Amino acid sequence: MIGLTNYAGVMESLMNSAEEKQPSSPLTNSWAKKQESSKSQKPNGVGGFVLVHAGAGYHSESKAKEYKHVCKRACQRAVDQLKAGALAVEAVAAALVELEDSPFTNAGMGSNLNLSGEIECDASIMDGKSLHFGAVGALSGIRNPVMVANRLLSEAQKGKLSAGRIPPCFLVGRGAHDWAVSHGIPPCPSDKMFSLSAYKRNKRKMELAEKMDTGHNQTKKRRQSSENVSDMLSVKILTVVSIFFLSCENGSGCLDTVGAVVVDLEGNVAAAVSSGGLAMKHPGRVGQAAHYGCGCWAENACNMNSYSTAVSTSGCGEHLIRTMLARECSAAMQSEDAHQALLEAMQNKFISSPFLASEDRVLGGVIVLRCCRCVEAQPSQNFQGILVEFLWSHTTESMCVGYMSAQDSKAKTHISRLPPGTVPGQSLAIEGGVCRLMGVVE
Amino acid sequence: MIGLTNYAGVMESLMNSAEEKQPSSPLTNSWAKKQESSKSQKPNGVGGFVLVHAGAGYHSESKAKEYKHVCKRACQRAVDQLKAGALAVEAVAAALVELEDSPFTNAGMGSNLNLSGEIECDASIMDGKSLHFGAVGALSGIRNPVMVANRLLSEAQKGKLSAGRIPPCFLVGRGAHDWAVSHGIPPCPSDKMFSLSAYKRNKRKMELAEKMDTGHNQTKKRRQSSENVSDMLSVKILTVVSIFFLSCENGSGCLDTVGAVVVDLEGNVAAAVSSGGLAMKHPGRVGQAAHYGCGCWAENACNMNSYSTAVSTSGCGEHLIRTMLARECSAAMQSEDAHQALLEAMQNKFISSPFLASEDRVLGGVIVLRCCRCVEAQPSQNFQGILVEFLWSHTTESMCVGYMSAQDSKAKTHISRLPPGTVPGQSLAIEGGVCRLMGVVE
Repeated sequence: MIGLTNYAGVMESLMNSAEEKQPSSPLTNSWAKKQESSKSQKPNGVGGFVLVHAGAGYHSESKAKEYKHVCKRACQRAVDQLKAGALAVEAVAAALVELEDSPFTNAGMGSNLNLSGEIECDASIMDGKSLHFGAVGALSGIRNPVMVANRLLSEAQKGKLSAGRIPPCFLVGRGAHDWAVSHGIPPCPSDKMFSLSAYKRNKRKMELAEKMDTGHNQTKKRRQSSENVSDMLSVKILTVVSIFFLSCENGSGCLDTVGAVVVDLEGNVAAAVSSGGLAMKHPGRVGQAAHYGCGCWAENACNMNSYSTAVSTSGCGEHLIRTMLARECSAAMQSEDAHQALLEAMQNKFISSPFLASEDRVLGGVIVLRCCRCVEAQPSQNFQGILVEFLWSHTTESMCVGYMSAQDSKAKTHISRLPPGTVPGQSLAIEGGVCRLMGVVE
Repeated sequence: MIGLTNYAGVMESLMNSAEEKQPSSPLTNSWAKKQESSKSQKPNGVGGFVLVHAGAGYHSESKAKEYKHVCKRACQRAVDQLKAGALAVEAVAAALVELEDSPFTNAGMGSNLNLSGEIECDASIMDGKSLHFGAVGALSGIRNPVMVANRLLSEAQKGKLSAGRIPPCFLVGRGAHDWAVSHGIPPCPSDKMFSLSAYKRNKRKMELAEKMDTGHNQTKKRRQSSENVSDMLSVKILTVVSIFFLSCENGSGCLDTVGAVVVDLEGNVAAAVSSGGLAMKHPGRVGQAAHYGCGCWAENACNMNSYSTAVSTSGCGEHLIRTMLARECSAAMQSEDAHQALLEAMQNKFISSPFLASEDRVLGGVIVLRCCRCVEAQPSQNFQGILVEFLWSHTTESMCVGYMSAQDSKAKTHISRLPPGTVPGQSLAIEGGVCRLMGVVE
């Protein structure tokens, strides 16, 4: 048992420039500032650390402030929970609610519209302590899909239903909506989930897509007969089709899924992810955010694993599903060198994955944390603490992240970008840091 | 390039009794007959092998004949495809269609009913050659869900949609239904998917469940407030609730998902799975049959993997999801000893999985095949062939399987059962065989 009567949060650069280690890799590691939180802060007996993302995709300079601001608020929400004694899984859900509530992100409020002009959301959450998982897919009319995923997780932890029936961990569509409402989660009229920001964002994407299609169209030829989009369009949605057109070809814009990873001061980890999915997706399409092992992953340390790990992904759902990227990154994090392990996982299990051999550009990003207990002898007392290493990596043009320990007065935010001249989908950026959470051994 | 002018199909026992190797394990290995197909059959230039299952669960002696018969027909359908020159993925889909069409199996026609008295199906298919995957979840009103999954797979292989949109690999609910219909797969009125057999099967399950609940109820206590089933029931379905009650506590009856694994004579593997899900499941619940890595897995041999592997699972969906059993078994099959590897995977990654630590009984089964190329020098010619090792293992009371090579005149079927006195969910059975597919090197 650890008495939490003292605490220090320290963040420092995790690695030197990746280029030095891997001269041939197109990497960037621009974030290498040393940051140290105030040690004079009053200890409060609880703590933890949160890392969030507002998507791997494209974040324009003009919108940077808004994306950073929502990441900051999400970190604060998680830290508020941790300070109130919440476990990692509760804190990560709180962060996601904030991210979903922003009209600037493609999750919950202001999500992308599908081909029918409707919002259908995916979300999932995993608790590294219990290893339980909850997910919803193609969910409409609920403001915070992550709350439904979290409720599925907590209901499953209570054990079997009547007559020995096993509680579901994954619900989709109307059934998911009705389950949520029957469990006290209020419905939200669809029109209230639209936002002017989402409209503008989708319009921008459409313009990018049209530019791509008319300029240097790299879209592979498909038989016209196999994709008669107009067959699926009702009269109602014909008016929005021209607005919500987009392209993923340039790795821009369509990938602003959100997510978070958290460790609490007991060392429990949790991860979550939420997405409105690709704009113009087919109704009923479920992306990585609802897929076990693909959207998020969390595993506490155990006999088999030295480190607790938590991962949340963002990007092209089908790429992240087929490479099962969250679980792959989690498994890689058991290696000694976290930075090198993530670099290799992103290179070998994602960009060069045999599962995506036919893809010319592989678009995605991850946030990762891993932690282990460490003991430091001090003159007066022994401190047993948790060493948290946190990283993000992406093959998209940019990725917006925020992070905060429970002892920090405010979150740090950052928009990571691929170096100029590199090709999205073929190059990657990787950055991160270290945070130490400490408590006196009782 | 291999000229397929000669062919021999040989099946033999893969292993001795598992008890001899693992005296402390509660195993059975009753199937150890040597079988050799006729070498006098006329070679036809194409070939392959199929292994199917009609579910891990409970197969009564009185119904054994029906289960075996449908497995036999499914094998024949796959072999017909292989003989016509089809690739593994096409053959495996054909087998699944036959399994789905049977009113005795819990897939497609005659599927279990959910809490609303409706049929909602899950299915998925994976092609080991392209590593593409297609899946549908909570799909109503389509006779053969696997056909939709297969069409998603083949559409994805064609490349991107207009404006660079990535084709979906996973569709659910109404959207999946509409996509299927727009791609030429005819709808099937829901009432035509009901069957008297399914009614009787569910009634039997209800009786078992009631016996369990009144007799030796092991159901864990749940807060009543968290599961007010009646809240979810419309007036319409109150009449069927009393009929479709069931229990999984004794590992019986609820798990009769179907699946198949195939290798063609080019050495390509494929796997598929289809399920009506748990009876009395919540509407929108998606089980392992639609989950990537959980319901089926197929990977051709490559630089990293010596063996091509294909796996299809059956059982309690949430157990199979959380342990990602199909992918785990596939990965295990790269070990030297296939039988030992599957035994350890089922023991360590399923029954004793940390992901299911809170479960008292872990219910599921798998069919697995792995294969590799082999060359045998003969006096006159060199034969390059494919050595196929096939296995099944289950922790449920029984599992019904069938298998057939393209040179066999008819399929073999078998209902594998746990030895008397062993406890379903805590013990396992494992059995299998070997088949050699041979062709002359040109």
